[in-house]
Amino acid sequence: MKKLILDLDTGVDDALAISYALGSPEVELIGITGTYGNVLVEQGVRNALAVTDLLGHPEVKVYQGLPHSSTTDHFEVLPISAFIHGKNGIGDVDIPDSNRSVETESAVDFIIDAIKTYGKNLIYVPTGPMTNIEAALKKAPEIKDEIGCIVLMGGALTVPGNCNACMEANISQDPEAADYLFRSGAPTTMVGLDVTLQTLLTYKETQRWRDLGTKAGTFLADMTDFYIKAYETTAPHLGGCGLHDPLAVGVAVDPTLVTTLDINMKVDVEGPTRGRTIGDETRLNDPVKTMKVAVGVDVPRFLNEFMTRISGLAANAG
Amino acid sequence: MKKLILDLDTGVDDALAISYALGSPEVELIGITGTYGNVLVEQGVRNALAVTDLLGHPEVKVYQGLPHSSTTDHFEVLPISAFIHGKNGIGDVDIPDSNRSVETESAVDFIIDAIKTYGKNLIYVPTGPMTNIEAALKKAPEIKDEIGCIVLMGGALTVPGNCNACMEANISQDPEAADYLFRSGAPTTMVGLDVTLQTLLTYKETQRWRDLGTKAGTFLADMTDFYIKAYETTAPHLGGCGLHDPLAVGVAVDPTLVTTLDINMKVDVEGPTRGRTIGDETRLNDPVKTMKVAVGVDVPRFLNEFMTRISGLAANAG
Repeated sequence: MKKLILDLDTGVDDALAISYALGSPEVELIGITGTYGNVLVEQGVRNALAVTDLLGHPEVKVYQGLPHSSTTDHFEVLPISAFIHGKNGIGDVDIPDSNRSVETESAVDFIIDAIKTYGKNLIYVPTGPMTNIEAALKKAPEIKDEIGCIVLMGGALTVPGNCNACMEANISQDPEAADYLFRSGAPTTMVGLDVTLQTLLTYKETQRWRDLGTKAGTFLADMTDFYIKAYETTAPHLGGCGLHDPLAVGVAVDPTLVTTLDINMKVDVEGPTRGRTIGDETRLNDPVKTMKVAVGVDVPRFLNEFMTRISGLAANAG
Repeated sequence: MKKLILDLDTGVDDALAISYALGSPEVELIGITGTYGNVLVEQGVRNALAVTDLLGHPEVKVYQGLPHSSTTDHFEVLPISAFIHGKNGIGDVDIPDSNRSVETESAVDFIIDAIKTYGKNLIYVPTGPMTNIEAALKKAPEIKDEIGCIVLMGGALTVPGNCNACMEANISQDPEAADYLFRSGAPTTMVGLDVTLQTLLTYKETQRWRDLGTKAGTFLADMTDFYIKAYETTAPHLGGCGLHDPLAVGVAVDPTLVTTLDINMKVDVEGPTRGRTIGDETRLNDPVKTMKVAVGVDVPRFLNEFMTRISGLAANAG
């Protein structure tokens, strides 16, 4: 069975990503590494522990990652992030704190150790900034050839960004880290706005969770309704909320959900296009392509998998 | 047989596009419409007449188009254009003026009339700014549903621009016109830097034309060597010159040369990303896609077709 690490700034859609992973019998979620973005790293770790408890999976260990990018000395949550995810990151829904603690091993060391242990069998799914994986690659560069693959949620290749015309939110937190990953040669699939804005959830689907009558179902419905409501303001043309982070997990579990373009990528780190994810023109004709970018998605099939897996989990979690 | 109109700012690679079209038995080149960009419209028209004569095809009629974009009141050739294409547009190679004149009908009216005559059998290939087709679409909006297809050389979706980080040269001349075309609903394939910078020509290939010992072969070799030499300065990482305009003709003749992404596109017309060709996020989930963007190309097959068709033409042209 494939082993999965989720690197999350938990976050509404991060919590849905946890749900998707736990509802997927093809993979074992061996750990969650915490990062910053939607929330501070401490809040994200707290949320990851509480959500895995609520979903009936207290065996999932949580590791704390770096609190900010290597090019900054601190991180503050943007008002827009709090608007979209709530002040507590999970739609301002109250759920009990876990009585478990975060692991003592750092996220960066756990990522390296897991790659050493599981090698090509390991899939790492970062859905926030790439700060932790950049640090891991700098500390143990050989892991780029040892890991199975990285499936990241972030970036935008064929559509505009969601921070500005060029920049997607996850990449915006640490463009240098994403650029380091993209040029590292690690086998990486980018699941960006190109596809995640095609996979939309509405109140109709969250009602199905509510109708389960379980604590988990009610939590998922309340949290996601908050998120859908924010989308009505930030992206009213969509008619739903984008399933960003869960789609990355979906692709990690089943790569055939998306069609991909083989291309060597870079991230602009200077000038007005800072944060843009784009093909690296200097490696355009390199026959070796280390990245894939998702440019198409089987929307009905993904939405069906999403609802089946998460509803099943939420029904059984009690 | 498919009917072809080339809309050219002739231009070194425009002259190669003419050669490719005339060397393709699958299509009939029914006319060349002139635009501005690499050169002034008058110089481009002069070059188109002279080149078709030299290539043994004086039956190809040439129509003069608009001299500048609708948002400007004049056009001047950029120094970089003269550096790449030569002051006369065809690598500063001297060839005789044609004794033919440009047609009296305007390019815009000719485009409209040709669509009315040939309908779905007509392919229009603009390889400069989209000024003429914008004017035609505004004068006779119904042609968007009547034309076979438009295959344009221009733009960049998955790689940076060649004017700045966002802007490709053809689109830069008239972003508003390209945006109008992209949103018009006309069936359009964009052949941009994504693929044209993968199809490279070197001195080795031009030597084969020189070895033909014909006037046409010598002209094509001299003109293209000037262009390759400019690329050694402007894009030394490539190791050759991009076959921009000929690839658009190649795709018009045989769409299977490229792999395409179905996507509704727009052109940014304001701000720091002015001139960028990008997916229109407001039409991302519209099931009707009116554009295709070439994101992959069968390089060996195209180069073989390119050399076979143009060498055959240059051998027989005398």
